[in-house]
Amino acid sequence: MAETPSPRAKLRRAPKRARYEPDFIYAVIDEALICQVATTLPDGSPIVLPTAHWRIGNRIYLHGHGKNGLLRRAAEAGQICISVMVLDGLVLARSAFHHSMNYRSVVIHGRPESVAEPTEKARVLRAFMEKITPERVAGVRPANAQELKATTVLSVPLTEVCGKARTGPPVDDAQDMALPVWAGVVPLRQIAADPIEDRP
Amino acid sequence: MAETPSPRAKLRRAPKRARYEPDFIYAVIDEALICQVATTLPDGSPIVLPTAHWRIGNRIYLHGHGKNGLLRRAAEAGQICISVMVLDGLVLARSAFHHSMNYRSVVIHGRPESVAEPTEKARVLRAFMEKITPERVAGVRPANAQELKATTVLSVPLTEVCGKARTGPPVDDAQDMALPVWAGVVPLRQIAADPIEDRP
Repeated sequence: MAETPSPRAKLRRAPKRARYEPDFIYAVIDEALICQVATTLPDGSPIVLPTAHWRIGNRIYLHGHGKNGLLRRAAEAGQICISVMVLDGLVLARSAFHHSMNYRSVVIHGRPESVAEPTEKARVLRAFMEKITPERVAGVRPANAQELKATTVLSVPLTEVCGKARTGPPVDDAQDMALPVWAGVVPLRQIAADPIEDRP
Repeated sequence: MAETPSPRAKLRRAPKRARYEPDFIYAVIDEALICQVATTLPDGSPIVLPTAHWRIGNRIYLHGHGKNGLLRRAAEAGQICISVMVLDGLVLARSAFHHSMNYRSVVIHGRPESVAEPTEKARVLRAFMEKITPERVAGVRPANAQELKATTVLSVPLTEVCGKARTGPPVDDAQDMALPVWAGVVPLRQIAADPIEDRP
């Protein structure tokens, strides 16, 4: 991963929040289940859609049905942008202006590359299963040849990447500190509720 | 809201998952704290960044510092796309191929309009505070003239919008139903943990 960001990937506003270290970038990508993929339509207008993602080494992977319009368009358009975010909390300040959110985010620019060779495709799809429920991988029927063929897998190298994070309490103006309103952070997290077994 | 989608907003794949009703669209926008905004850079390449959003009536609102590059670029580029998603669960099937996620999502295409008039800007920013913590709005110091001036607010009408949802258990092939692997749904939800008061 390039630790010196490209002009496009460089954070211009609030540069103190920028994070370019691979450990940070990788942790955000690995924790988030969903990313948002932006590409452009033939008329030049942007489109962004959510999809699942996973990571192997210094690459992020996306997949979908071969007829998936987003992936097809992403492959055609050449340049895509992927945004991954983990929301960590509401930052509730004493003034409306200083409200914020705590988060960790990663933005990736790149050209998607197709993973077409069946053995390699099977290998990278297995890594996706291992991200989601590692304990179930051994019991699940792997994709057969027809299913592999129907699945498009794209990867983007993590070379043009910018991470960003906000942490900690609100930062209020001195003259607002005595206002009689609760201020602080409400941590947010994603939890798994009780699993619902499929018993047909 | 147009219940007949524009060609760009129409869902082509899995049309049974499309949801165009305002109640569905509004509920997703209101529940999600973060959206992803895509625009194009001057070289035509796409960029997508996360930001908070809120809704009043049939419009979605975004805000940021006046120097915020995304909002500035969005206003310049004209066309933007906004993606909002609530992830509801992991759908764990008996075959790798039929794994999925339950979710509700909304994709909006449109041209951002600036909310520049101070009284109107203050009114729509107050609606954002009411979304986040309605019980605190009365105690928080509202934005002063200088803060209002430093804040850019954009809105996009919810006219070119497509919702999409997946719900329910995995859909496996008949020949996989007897595989000895757990299958079902793991519901996911965002929870607020204990608030951390800011006591300087």
